[in-house]
Amino acid sequence: MTDTGDNIANDIFFDWLLRRGDTALVLGHRVSEWCGHSPVLEEDIALANIALDLIGQARLWLSLAGEVEGKGRGENELAYLRDAWDFRNLLLAEQPNGDFGQTMMRQFLIDAYQAQLLKALAKSADERVAEIAVKAGKEVDYHLDRSADLVIRLGDGTAESRQRMQMAVEILWPYSGEMFIGDAVDQAAAAAKVAPSPEDLRPDWVSTVDAVFTAATLSKPETDFAHTGGLTGRHSEHLGHILADMQFLQRAYPGATW
Amino acid sequence: MTDTGDNIANDIFFDWLLRRGDTALVLGHRVSEWCGHSPVLEEDIALANIALDLIGQARLWLSLAGEVEGKGRGENELAYLRDAWDFRNLLLAEQPNGDFGQTMMRQFLIDAYQAQLLKALAKSADERVAEIAVKAGKEVDYHLDRSADLVIRLGDGTAESRQRMQMAVEILWPYSGEMFIGDAVDQAAAAAKVAPSPEDLRPDWVSTVDAVFTAATLSKPETDFAHTGGLTGRHSEHLGHILADMQFLQRAYPGATW
Repeated sequence: MTDTGDNIANDIFFDWLLRRGDTALVLGHRVSEWCGHSPVLEEDIALANIALDLIGQARLWLSLAGEVEGKGRGENELAYLRDAWDFRNLLLAEQPNGDFGQTMMRQFLIDAYQAQLLKALAKSADERVAEIAVKAGKEVDYHLDRSADLVIRLGDGTAESRQRMQMAVEILWPYSGEMFIGDAVDQAAAAAKVAPSPEDLRPDWVSTVDAVFTAATLSKPETDFAHTGGLTGRHSEHLGHILADMQFLQRAYPGATW
Repeated sequence: MTDTGDNIANDIFFDWLLRRGDTALVLGHRVSEWCGHSPVLEEDIALANIALDLIGQARLWLSLAGEVEGKGRGENELAYLRDAWDFRNLLLAEQPNGDFGQTMMRQFLIDAYQAQLLKALAKSADERVAEIAVKAGKEVDYHLDRSADLVIRLGDGTAESRQRMQMAVEILWPYSGEMFIGDAVDQAAAAAKVAPSPEDLRPDWVSTVDAVFTAATLSKPETDFAHTGGLTGRHSEHLGHILADMQFLQRAYPGATW
């Protein structure tokens, strides 16, 4: 097992890993909110499976984060006992589900990014990162096939469904830029060859989005404005509600396992 | 494909199939309520997988029910557009989750019954029933391994956990008898060799329960009292709350698929 400890400081690596784990965890929780509430049984099952994959990925990233941190915190402590300002997920992941189309648009925009990122991470200098990326990458490729297909079917559907999907684009687009804006943490991870620079992932992501939006007859917004802050702990109030729901049991009964 | 139409009236067969589908659907929904709320990520994933299996089984039973009914209703109409008095699930399936131990006790009592029932149904004179039973039986055998193991670990655990599990037995036991009380629908299904008589499943179920309770250091209640009514549409108010949650979207926006 390669130890990247010489090339990247533990606290920075920890932060970088939280970004991966928290984005998967928060998105997984959002998707799981559909659990038992979809209007179609088949869709209920498909969404629950995606949620399960994402929570499984979160466990892998957060376990590694705890190991790197070296303070005895495991996946559960990191998932259930941190406050909102310690979460490092993309703001896009915490955006509300909206209708089924909006959920699928959020999923597509993130899937297209994650697929690129995980492909690059499969070649990470840190073998533990590479191993997680290979496993997660297979799942995300499948999610992307599905979300891209649904965005196209709903966009290129009825007038009503097209209008709703275009609305979903307008709502979510300003949260997509954050995926490609690097900071000191990203620079350190890139310098240590743990990860690619976020900026380098943008061109392929744009190609994927352009192809799918064209097929879906959807317009890409002109604006370059990007909400940021999620990756450094400045979240929308949505995350607070997610954590209240997710962490309630553990907060109310510390140490409870049932 | 064998047609059992000559041996059992369609409306009775329909009712019998609803008992299978609704029990899986309601239990699956109950288990899915843990989704995103378990105090341990691993448990969250395990419970979500069980919920997925059960909802998958419900789809198979309800699709076949719709086919037998012959009025153009499919799995979604049957799941989302019936009222509580048209549901045919066991009362045990709709009982509240309680704590994790109570959820596991409910699961064990039903798993032990379903495992016996599905083994017998795999030899059903109706090939469609046999096919579903083979598929569902594999899943339920796995659920039973897991729920029996957890009942033993929690029962034969700390004083606190043992006490909680004994409490779960006391709460749930009076709902277990309904699984083994046959009526005219069961007699017709047995006569057509579609299914075994419920009474015939009891001895093996009792053996399983006795073995697990002994290992778990739990006492089996003496009482033979059994709440009944679920299989004929007389439910506790719990079912109403489950349906309000599960059916809200489809009731509020009829025909909506997103």
